[in-house]
Amino acid sequence: MANPIPASALDQLFRHARTPNDWAPTPIDDATVHALYDLLKWGPTSANSTPARFVWVRSAEGKAQLASLAMEANRPKILAAPLTAIIGNDLDFPETMPKLFPARGEMMKQMFKQPGVAEVTAMRNGSLQGAYLIIAARALGLDCGPMSGFDNAGVDKAFFAGTNIHSNFICCLGHGKPESIFPRNPRLTFEEAGRFA
Amino acid sequence: MANPIPASALDQLFRHARTPNDWAPTPIDDATVHALYDLLKWGPTSANSTPARFVWVRSAEGKAQLASLAMEANRPKILAAPLTAIIGNDLDFPETMPKLFPARGEMMKQMFKQPGVAEVTAMRNGSLQGAYLIIAARALGLDCGPMSGFDNAGVDKAFFAGTNIHSNFICCLGHGKPESIFPRNPRLTFEEAGRFA
Repeated sequence: MANPIPASALDQLFRHARTPNDWAPTPIDDATVHALYDLLKWGPTSANSTPARFVWVRSAEGKAQLASLAMEANRPKILAAPLTAIIGNDLDFPETMPKLFPARGEMMKQMFKQPGVAEVTAMRNGSLQGAYLIIAARALGLDCGPMSGFDNAGVDKAFFAGTNIHSNFICCLGHGKPESIFPRNPRLTFEEAGRFA
Repeated sequence: MANPIPASALDQLFRHARTPNDWAPTPIDDATVHALYDLLKWGPTSANSTPARFVWVRSAEGKAQLASLAMEANRPKILAAPLTAIIGNDLDFPETMPKLFPARGEMMKQMFKQPGVAEVTAMRNGSLQGAYLIIAARALGLDCGPMSGFDNAGVDKAFFAGTNIHSNFICCLGHGKPESIFPRNPRLTFEEAGRFA
């Protein structure tokens, strides 16, 4: 039975974490991106399917291309952030099941290949993995700016050509400028969002 | 610029966290469920839309009903766990935008009500919130057993009747029995799961 993590860590991950709209130019090195992946990869997914795929956009060319495919309001954020991750769902993920679930890989592969199953499984679990990325980044001291305002088909063509990977959302990563943070919006109360049964 | 949270917290959230298959009977009190919601609610969603809704199934009747709608292998887990959360997507979430995004609530409401937009937004962001629930529960010292093997339509009828909420996945919460944990499955390497651009 574990104890809660320190209150300062709860603040950093949830209570005090905010989405910046402008970014310091401080670069993010390879080791940090690998450390981020090496945390988020452990988050649970259906039958360990881990359908999310990542493009870590860090070059000037990559940022310009991604920015050109984003809603106008999101372009300067992508250009300013040292790194923007594209989180995609690989609809061919069933092919990886023999590696990811050795005990019953072939069975799981066939199960996920039934009509319609891969799509919903990829969207559900790829989004879970996107959230693991956000929390893991905050755990490492990075700020996150997740966005879904972009041309999905254009991003797929530019960054996932020749694959069956479909972009889900994108997320700027780095050190946000505190003065670029908007006032915090309210949340639903416990009772508005649910009930006991 | 924040520092990483302590290594022991990274272990608890990601590196050492595992999915148990059997549960100690230790109950989970109201205060813990409220504390869990009061963390997960802060996780970022598109325009603060927070489309996830929760049923916290804790009564004997609720557990029996939910177990009866689950895949056979998942039934004993639901019956043994002190609490199982049903995470649903509220397709009527656009109606909440005036409260959740006061600065541009009516505009956001109309935007999310465009054909097809509410569905994909709810599934993406409701799943993000499901992952925030998992990580927040672990942060509070709880174990998680997320599952998608159940009759979605049956659960919607039993627990979300009269609403436009659609079940996404369910998650046992409590204190897992360590001996019920399976050997850990491998993950994709950094290179298998992505690339720099």
